Amino acid sequence: MPALSSKRVVLKSRPVGAPKPTDFSLVEAPVPALGDGEILTRTIYLSLDPYMRGRISGVKSYAKGVDPGDLMVGGTVGEVLESKHPGFKKGDFVQGYDGWQTHGVSKGLGVRTLDPAQAPLSTALGVLGMPGMTAYVGLLDIGKPKAGETIVVSAASGAVGAVVGQLGTIKGCRVVGVAGGKDKCEYVVDELGFDACVDYKRDDFATALQAACPKGIDVYFENVGGAVLGAVLKLINPFARIPLCGLVSQYNATEMPAGPNWGVLLVNRVLVKGFIVSDHIDRLPDFLRDVGGWLREGRIKYREDIVNGLEQAPEAFIGLLQGRNFGKLIVKVGEDPTRR
Amino acid sequence: MPALSSKRVVLKSRPVGAPKPTDFSLVEAPVPALGDGEILTRTIYLSLDPYMRGRISGVKSYAKGVDPGDLMVGGTVGEVLESKHPGFKKGDFVQGYDGWQTHGVSKGLGVRTLDPAQAPLSTALGVLGMPGMTAYVGLLDIGKPKAGETIVVSAASGAVGAVVGQLGTIKGCRVVGVAGGKDKCEYVVDELGFDACVDYKRDDFATALQAACPKGIDVYFENVGGAVLGAVLKLINPFARIPLCGLVSQYNATEMPAGPNWGVLLVNRVLVKGFIVSDHIDRLPDFLRDVGGWLREGRIKYREDIVNGLEQAPEAFIGLLQGRNFGKLIVKVGEDPTRR
Repeated sequence: MPALSSKRVVLKSRPVGAPKPTDFSLVEAPVPALGDGEILTRTIYLSLDPYMRGRISGVKSYAKGVDPGDLMVGGTVGEVLESKHPGFKKGDFVQGYDGWQTHGVSKGLGVRTLDPAQAPLSTALGVLGMPGMTAYVGLLDIGKPKAGETIVVSAASGAVGAVVGQLGTIKGCRVVGVAGGKDKCEYVVDELGFDACVDYKRDDFATALQAACPKGIDVYFENVGGAVLGAVLKLINPFARIPLCGLVSQYNATEMPAGPNWGVLLVNRVLVKGFIVSDHIDRLPDFLRDVGGWLREGRIKYREDIVNGLEQAPEAFIGLLQGRNFGKLIVKVGEDPTRR
Repeated sequence: MPALSSKRVVLKSRPVGAPKPTDFSLVEAPVPALGDGEILTRTIYLSLDPYMRGRISGVKSYAKGVDPGDLMVGGTVGEVLESKHPGFKKGDFVQGYDGWQTHGVSKGLGVRTLDPAQAPLSTALGVLGMPGMTAYVGLLDIGKPKAGETIVVSAASGAVGAVVGQLGTIKGCRVVGVAGGKDKCEYVVDELGFDACVDYKRDDFATALQAACPKGIDVYFENVGGAVLGAVLKLINPFARIPLCGLVSQYNATEMPAGPNWGVLLVNRVLVKGFIVSDHIDRLPDFLRDVGGWLREGRIKYREDIVNGLEQAPEAFIGLLQGRNFGKLIVKVGEDPTRR
């Protein structure tokens, strides 16, 4: 095999506030020789997700951060070019964590083989991947929706929110999305089948949310924080559950804004539970069975926002934090031989 | 039976900020004739508790509020003077909810008979009553402490906090109290056996709390809110649980202060759960068996702050909201024939 080089996006400097393109740089490095138990993968798709803002922030968190000079982390779908690992062979399609690069070497930890006959490869980063499973675990295991209840989900057209709402519909709930702009709201109602979707950019957002939730809110799947959270809490019902998945509205903040007063949680006996999908890996088989099945039956739909070329990743990521993407944001890094 | 009159404290006006004595008035009213299924009780002890501030606030909450002109609500221990209810007879000692008055008529709903041979009557308002059960349900069912974990409880010398900490010790945890002033902190450690207690009035409170919690905080039993909550969250461990029982630091606030940013809850996958003991009445038998047993074995101690005379109730209640009481605050309204 000829010596390969990998293009990679590394963090150049820690962003202060919103990341800028110059906080990243594209470099090229030779791919190291494969050791025993390792696989070499050509990246086809790279997933861009809001959690990455936390990884580059320098703040202590649940996972190791990315320091300046480090490769940007991220979930990937790729094709195995060479394997010295008994679990994988050349030509396998896999979902792994090779990060923002064209070629990655891994020991296969957490890497799973994909069957392109079951679903498009890219779905392993979205509806059938980490975002979909985040929705599944957060809504079902923490939100515990009961038929007839009202669920509100923020970032409703996003990779997680879209699945949350459709799961809520399957569970017999009234589902109300919150999204930014008319197009996203229409998509959420018309394509995803939510009962309503409220544009958080409206001046009368709180009033419109109240109108969309005539029986109050029993489950709030929290992706954003900020003003949306404040409006939701004014409508929260006794014994409501709030799976706390993300707070994207504040990820670029240089000082953490204050949160809501806890009186509303006390009086209404609300449950708030922060969660990270990787703590719930035991639910992967259930998730793949259920959501995979509903996807094949057409009961769950998804939308992808695919950007071409690794060099576009920084700009796309910056846009993600501002809500510029529409659907699951994915960078196409290399050819997908199973598509077109 | 001669016509009786009852002295009663009614709400005169809604307090703005801290209640004043003039927000209450002492009135006298004839006791109505007893109907079928009713009991007439002479009040011996009246419980004063922080939740009463919410009831007189005019804000919609989980229970019916007290309007100006209404009798102040509250748990009571009394002696049955007359009964037309098959479950009670003259001379029975009972724990009920007759409110701030010397004589009450009730239909017996939620009223339980007390055996003075088992425990002093007044304990039915404290360690073996609503506050004790609040501690039991909140710590065990929501906090779910595991041996070796660190529990922090605010208002540690109070009726709820004192039981929380002692239950924590029984469960094999490191227990750290937060209380106001040297005397209370010494009592909490020396008498109640907490591992440490930190005075929230200290300038270096946050540093002292950190020193008392070298392994971080796994369970925070929240009674107060405000600055104590902020300091606790800086030390919170992954997967911590926060039973949210009270927020007494803000009960007199005219505007709700902001709360903590939720980022710390997300990153640490913290559970916050507001609760009200009356939702958990199914746990009463377990509570009475466990805490009653530990009390008789001397493994749980308690302290009462007894004020004499119904007319003292408003002033005592005002002090309670400022932390002036030391131990479970009780008003002795009438003679206790089982004591002295």
